[in-house]
Amino acid sequence: MAGNPIHFGIIGCAEVSRKLSRAMSLAPNAILSAIGSRSIDKAKRFAVENGLPEAVNLYGTYQGVLDDPTVEAVYVPLPTSMHVQWAVAVAERKKHVFLEKPTALNVADLDRILEACESNGVQFMDCTMWVHHPRTHKMKELLSDPNRFGELRSVHSIFASCGDAHFLENDVRVKPDLDGLGGLGDTGWYCVRSILWANDYQLPKTVTAFQGTYYNKAGVILSCGASMVWEDGRVASFQCGFRINIVMDVTVHGSNGTLHLHDFVIPFEETSAPFTFVTNTEFKDRQLGWKPFPREHVVTTNLPQEVLMVEEFVRLVKSIKDSGSKPDSKWPTISRKTQLVIDAVKESIDKGCEPINVVN
Amino acid sequence: MAGNPIHFGIIGCAEVSRKLSRAMSLAPNAILSAIGSRSIDKAKRFAVENGLPEAVNLYGTYQGVLDDPTVEAVYVPLPTSMHVQWAVAVAERKKHVFLEKPTALNVADLDRILEACESNGVQFMDCTMWVHHPRTHKMKELLSDPNRFGELRSVHSIFASCGDAHFLENDVRVKPDLDGLGGLGDTGWYCVRSILWANDYQLPKTVTAFQGTYYNKAGVILSCGASMVWEDGRVASFQCGFRINIVMDVTVHGSNGTLHLHDFVIPFEETSAPFTFVTNTEFKDRQLGWKPFPREHVVTTNLPQEVLMVEEFVRLVKSIKDSGSKPDSKWPTISRKTQLVIDAVKESIDKGCEPINVVN
Repeated sequence: MAGNPIHFGIIGCAEVSRKLSRAMSLAPNAILSAIGSRSIDKAKRFAVENGLPEAVNLYGTYQGVLDDPTVEAVYVPLPTSMHVQWAVAVAERKKHVFLEKPTALNVADLDRILEACESNGVQFMDCTMWVHHPRTHKMKELLSDPNRFGELRSVHSIFASCGDAHFLENDVRVKPDLDGLGGLGDTGWYCVRSILWANDYQLPKTVTAFQGTYYNKAGVILSCGASMVWEDGRVASFQCGFRINIVMDVTVHGSNGTLHLHDFVIPFEETSAPFTFVTNTEFKDRQLGWKPFPREHVVTTNLPQEVLMVEEFVRLVKSIKDSGSKPDSKWPTISRKTQLVIDAVKESIDKGCEPINVVN
Repeated sequence: MAGNPIHFGIIGCAEVSRKLSRAMSLAPNAILSAIGSRSIDKAKRFAVENGLPEAVNLYGTYQGVLDDPTVEAVYVPLPTSMHVQWAVAVAERKKHVFLEKPTALNVADLDRILEACESNGVQFMDCTMWVHHPRTHKMKELLSDPNRFGELRSVHSIFASCGDAHFLENDVRVKPDLDGLGGLGDTGWYCVRSILWANDYQLPKTVTAFQGTYYNKAGVILSCGASMVWEDGRVASFQCGFRINIVMDVTVHGSNGTLHLHDFVIPFEETSAPFTFVTNTEFKDRQLGWKPFPREHVVTTNLPQEVLMVEEFVRLVKSIKDSGSKPDSKWPTISRKTQLVIDAVKESIDKGCEPINVVN
């Protein structure tokens, strides 16, 4: 993919911006050209601490990045409650929208963003990194094998970390005015995405939250879980939040095969990622052991998953820029389905764990 | 533990009887002295196929074993619907009751069995093998460490296998008149036990079945799941049944630590069993990887878990026999709690996934 690189701006010097600015420097055909923060000092400090080239324009406002004529695409890691305002503003400046997850507080807000992108002919993609790891493609290959995996029947996913007392009341991700979805938005997003991914992005029929949602003093979700069911009887469940030691499991169960991974959101290591797969498991005589054992597969990658994510976004943006094509609908559609299920979980929680029908 | 061995009888030549007769031959101080089947031919065939010593008495009825004066304890692997009748009969003959799981169709039936054992002064224990593996004790040690594991917050468990079309309609375990609890009784029993084990056998406050229970034509549960919650906010979930490739996962989440195992019911190998544990997981700078990685522990055992189970039962029986002590209440209490939760799951399923309060 030769040719002119895509010039990125970043609005917000969040912790994750450090990872993304590095990713932009590693991705072919991506250049970071501007950073905006709420103060110019913060932007300058970010530039120094992350060793950004001098050519990167620094701004003491987000608007400065949007107004910068060199910027073609903007990475938006702001708190979720600010997504509609800023993602729409980016799109209206005819710049492509590279949006952190959760994409919005609800699907109505996301629709405002998606409509702005569509009407302005700019690409939208959310920043769910793990789906761009080559491991994800390798696993999908196995899950698509009718003999080795068979029919998909069940998925379980859990992503959580443990916040300390200060985090649980004060972090951006659990402030009602900043990230009202709390642990559901920040960690549940990944679980829901993994479940949809395993189900080829078919939406469940019904979503039901688990009893036992845990809130902070401000009423924001710290941990929760839900089960879901599809028309044909497939099921899934997940747990998420900020109350347990870091864990990132996905288990996918087929009639013939089983897939396990334990680091789906952020691989244990940057350059290689493991999973186990086993097919047609049986017991030895008198159930004295298993045959075969689950086998570990390791998928290596030269570029970390966040770089591959930037590369994918660049590919779509370049396609619009170089050949005048329309924005690609694959990723926006997947974002919207994820948000729909998140909305259903939230609604179920708010209604005392009633089952909620998911309507596209 | 020297002294006279305990003489066992077995009623029913089920597949699992092959495993248990071997366990009795390997366990110190246990002797298999009688087997009864519905026909003497079947009993004879079992004896030949399993290389039983000639001294083992063979009977064409179950009653023959109960009437055999050499028999002190009886292993009962009959279909669940026959447990009350036969376990009570065993106890009334003053023989100790070694009962396959699920212990009964409901807790009222189990109570009849437990009352018969108590009033006749005989030991009761169910045949959940994995709790007797030294791995289980090693894991409990780690889960009890306030620093390495912290507070227990969440458990997830799944045990399932995949039955073919014939199995799903015709196997003993899914026949309404033989094992009315179907997949919930046969596989969910282990999941519920693992959840209670991790919770030091504290009962949950509420149990709620997942939407999506799957039935066979006769209306017996083939697969199901449930979530549960404790007074203090601890949660758990499980899935079980006969519709996916064999899987046996337990994951226990604490504020500081995480325990994973993937072969909890039947270890991959007889003589060694793995699990992974990790404590105080963090990310490297910019979340580019984990530190530390989960570490695999392997626990070896000279005797397989089913032999250790027989050994534990023998220990309790000998204590009654040799020193005239009363039957031990630890295992009956654990069986009853497991059955109570199974009952609650079943009730929730029958009531359209309503939350059910668990009352001891």
